[in-house]
Amino acid sequence: MEFTDCFPIWNELTDTQRQNLSATVTHRKLEKHAVVHRGNLDCTGLLLVQSGQLRAYALSDEGREITLYRLIELDICLFSASCVMRGIQFEVSIEAEKDTWVWVVPPNVYQTLMEESAAVANYTNELMSNRFSEVMWLMEQILWKRIDQRLSSFLLQESALEGTNTLSITHEKIANHLGSAREVVTRMLRYFQSEGLVKLSRGQVELVNLKGLASLRGD
Amino acid sequence: MEFTDCFPIWNELTDTQRQNLSATVTHRKLEKHAVVHRGNLDCTGLLLVQSGQLRAYALSDEGREITLYRLIELDICLFSASCVMRGIQFEVSIEAEKDTWVWVVPPNVYQTLMEESAAVANYTNELMSNRFSEVMWLMEQILWKRIDQRLSSFLLQESALEGTNTLSITHEKIANHLGSAREVVTRMLRYFQSEGLVKLSRGQVELVNLKGLASLRGD
Repeated sequence: MEFTDCFPIWNELTDTQRQNLSATVTHRKLEKHAVVHRGNLDCTGLLLVQSGQLRAYALSDEGREITLYRLIELDICLFSASCVMRGIQFEVSIEAEKDTWVWVVPPNVYQTLMEESAAVANYTNELMSNRFSEVMWLMEQILWKRIDQRLSSFLLQESALEGTNTLSITHEKIANHLGSAREVVTRMLRYFQSEGLVKLSRGQVELVNLKGLASLRGD
Repeated sequence: MEFTDCFPIWNELTDTQRQNLSATVTHRKLEKHAVVHRGNLDCTGLLLVQSGQLRAYALSDEGREITLYRLIELDICLFSASCVMRGIQFEVSIEAEKDTWVWVVPPNVYQTLMEESAAVANYTNELMSNRFSEVMWLMEQILWKRIDQRLSSFLLQESALEGTNTLSITHEKIANHLGSAREVVTRMLRYFQSEGLVKLSRGQVELVNLKGLASLRGD
């Protein structure tokens, strides 16, 4: 799999633009747990995920976290190039949740492409709209769903992403995904256990009643 | 004030694009309380506010509301043309909070402009990023600020928008702005009154200690 096969609007570029892009794109491995992007502190460039998984999250002044969305194979990470996105006035952090291979388009190269090509600019807009949609969905969940619904949603999503019903994850980590407190998550997981939905052990949450969790999720 | 003076990227359009835009833009009055846009039910077009005030808000299935942002003089409303924004998978409603004069660019006209012109596409992207930034700010407030901080913030913002310290607004309306419940707002306003920050009367909230409210806001 080459960059040229995976970049969705490759066919809409001119020959010169393709040459320029090919000459500057790099292929890079991000180790699991590596923080790729920290708010406005750096501007790595546009990332196209070849394999692996990235997590975009927001950080509070007090160090609390909430997961905004995940990026997997063939997803494009825009906010690692936020320095060239005019109008972005918020900070997103991005970390690798698995060993991840990405192609990196340097920010200035992407900026020139956007300025030259309506196709690239409109595609960027579509990507931005997709991320915006994910954050709107999340905000509505936070406002209008109870924590038990959000927790069951998260456990099912995680299980689908990992391809297993036994999740190796701490209560602290789950709280960071949900923007909640560890105590709240622990209390709710114990309640889930008493209802026969999950089985808890050290550093693990096993989903034992997927149907029950899905019906709780309420979507 | 003409549309051509107020549309920020007029100078970056070709003659043909300008003629086409001039020929199709309409000037319209939105009565106070009129709902301009209801989620995906209609697609009015791009709105450029000449005077007045629009409110963009999200609605839950149960009819609860939260204010996402306000649009005032010279602001551009993108979501009233959401049918031509690929990637937008959420619903926003928009109402006039005051009698409001707008110029309306038909959705198909704007779509053609975006496809033809990288300048228009990038400007659209910047507008989208601005709205995205406002929603991210709001989500972080909801997650990480207490309701007293958000309420004092809202009262101060409202007072600045209206140019008065005596707000004619019900507790129900305030709750709809904040995505909260009326009882929660009433309880907090009574607490504010007991602290000498506001004075409550039927359908009105008078801000009597702006400094105190600002210090509570914590930003």
